[in-house]
Amino acid sequence: MDNRAIGVFDSGLGGLTAVRRLQEIMPQERIIYFGDTGRVPYGTRGRDIIIKYARQDVAFLRQFDLKAIIVACNTVSSVALDLLGEENDIPIIGTVEPACRRALRETKNGRIGVIGTVATVRSGAYERRLTAERSPLALTVCACPLFVPLVENGRVSRGDIVIETVVREYLTPLREAGVDTLILGCTHYPLLADVIGDFMQGVTLIDSGAEAANAARTQVEQGAGPGGTQYFVSDDPQGFTQLAGLFLQQPAAGEAELVEISRY
Amino acid sequence: MDNRAIGVFDSGLGGLTAVRRLQEIMPQERIIYFGDTGRVPYGTRGRDIIIKYARQDVAFLRQFDLKAIIVACNTVSSVALDLLGEENDIPIIGTVEPACRRALRETKNGRIGVIGTVATVRSGAYERRLTAERSPLALTVCACPLFVPLVENGRVSRGDIVIETVVREYLTPLREAGVDTLILGCTHYPLLADVIGDFMQGVTLIDSGAEAANAARTQVEQGAGPGGTQYFVSDDPQGFTQLAGLFLQQPAAGEAELVEISRY
Repeated sequence: MDNRAIGVFDSGLGGLTAVRRLQEIMPQERIIYFGDTGRVPYGTRGRDIIIKYARQDVAFLRQFDLKAIIVACNTVSSVALDLLGEENDIPIIGTVEPACRRALRETKNGRIGVIGTVATVRSGAYERRLTAERSPLALTVCACPLFVPLVENGRVSRGDIVIETVVREYLTPLREAGVDTLILGCTHYPLLADVIGDFMQGVTLIDSGAEAANAARTQVEQGAGPGGTQYFVSDDPQGFTQLAGLFLQQPAAGEAELVEISRY
Repeated sequence: MDNRAIGVFDSGLGGLTAVRRLQEIMPQERIIYFGDTGRVPYGTRGRDIIIKYARQDVAFLRQFDLKAIIVACNTVSSVALDLLGEENDIPIIGTVEPACRRALRETKNGRIGVIGTVATVRSGAYERRLTAERSPLALTVCACPLFVPLVENGRVSRGDIVIETVVREYLTPLREAGVDTLILGCTHYPLLADVIGDFMQGVTLIDSGAEAANAARTQVEQGAGPGGTQYFVSDDPQGFTQLAGLFLQQPAAGEAELVEISRY
C-alpha cells in the first residue's frame, strides 16, 4: 500500500485523457492534475522552452507528496523525459515507451505509423524507442500541427469537412505506407478517433495517454483509497470545466485551482 | 527630431504586419520588436494572464530608450491598453482606436463588422470604442478562433478548402448583416485578405496593425535616421526567420535574439 498521490501533467487539458483512464483502472488512487493552460501549446515550441516549462510543471507537482508522475504530454515525454527522470527520485512515467510497447504487440506487418506535434516528431523519440525494441520496422512519422487547435475548437465530428480534409491530408502518407498500427502520439488525438478510424480503416489506433496510465498500474504500488482528483491550471479556472468535459467525456468532479506556474 | 526608437510588441509574429507598415511610412525610424513566441497565442487566454504577459512585454521593451510603444496585438489592445497607458510615461498606441477611426471614415451604410480572437471579442473593446464615436451603428462582432493557427500553418490561399470553409462559417453572419466595412481585429488576419475579400465582395477591409502604424506617424516625433529594426523573441530564434517572412512579405533583415520574458 502506498497512499501517496499520483501527479499528472500536460501542456493543457489533453492529458485528461490519461486521467480518465487512470480513474477507470485505478479508482482508489488520489490524482493531482496540472494543466499548463497559461502557456499551452508546447508542441509548436523549441526544445529549450519545452524543457524549462516541463521542469516548472514537475516542480509544482513535487510540492505534493507523490509516488509517481505521469507526463501525459507527448511533447514533454519526447523531449525531456530522461532529464526529468534523472532529476527526480520518484518514477516519471511518459507516454512514448508504453505506447511503443503496445504498438509492437499489436502490429502484424511491422509497419507502424506515429503522429504527433511538430516538437514530438522533430525529437525522433518514437523512432528511437521503436527501433531499439525491434528492427527492422517500417516506420512512418507525421506531424499534425492543426489537430490540437481543431480539437480545442470542437472540430472532431464525422462529416465536418474541415477536420476530414486535414485528416486526409496528414494521414495519406500513413495509409500509403500500409501501416496496420497507428500511435496517436498526442493526448488530444483520441478525440479524433472516429474521423481517423474512418480514414485508416482496419488500422489499430494506440492511445498514448491511456497506455501511460496502464504503465502506471504496473509500476506504482496501489493506494488504499478513497480515490479522487484535484485539478490545477495556470489560466482561467472558470474555462476549465467546459473543456475538461470534452477530454474526460464526463463533467470534471470539482473545480480547478489557479497556479502561477512561472514562479516554480 | 527624436532619435529614440519605437517599441512594437505582439503575442507572436502577427505584429510584424504593423512593422512592415511602419518601415514603409517611417523608414527613418529605429524599431525594437518583441514577439512573445514562447507564450503565443494570447487570444485564447483569460484576462489576468493577458495583463500579466502584456506588462512583462512592456517591461522588456522599456529597457530600451523609447519614444513610444505600439501594441501590435489586438488582444492586448482590447484588454490592457488603458492600464499600460496609465503605467507608462510614453505614448502606448494600440490597434483598436486607429482601426475604429478608419472604419468610421470608410463606412457608408453604418454597418461595421469586427473579427478577432476570443479574448478580443469578449472584451467588448471594439463595440465600446465604435459606439462612443458614433451612434447608432449596426455592429456585428465575431470571434474567429481558428484563423490564427490556420495562418501560422500557412493555410491562407484561395482554393484551400479548409480556410475557405472556416472563412465562410465565421463570416456568414457578417455578410448577412450587410456590413460594408470589416475590421480585421487581429494582426494575423491581413494574411487572409484574399480569401476574406473573395467572400466579403465589395466590403472594405481595415488592417488594424497598419492603422496602428499610421497612428504612430501622427503621434510620434520623427527620427533623423538611419532606420532599422531589431527583433527579439521568447522562443526559437532559429524559427523566427521563416515565419517572419510570411508576415513581413520579405525576408527579415537580421536575426532575432532570445529573451527570457518571464524574468520581467
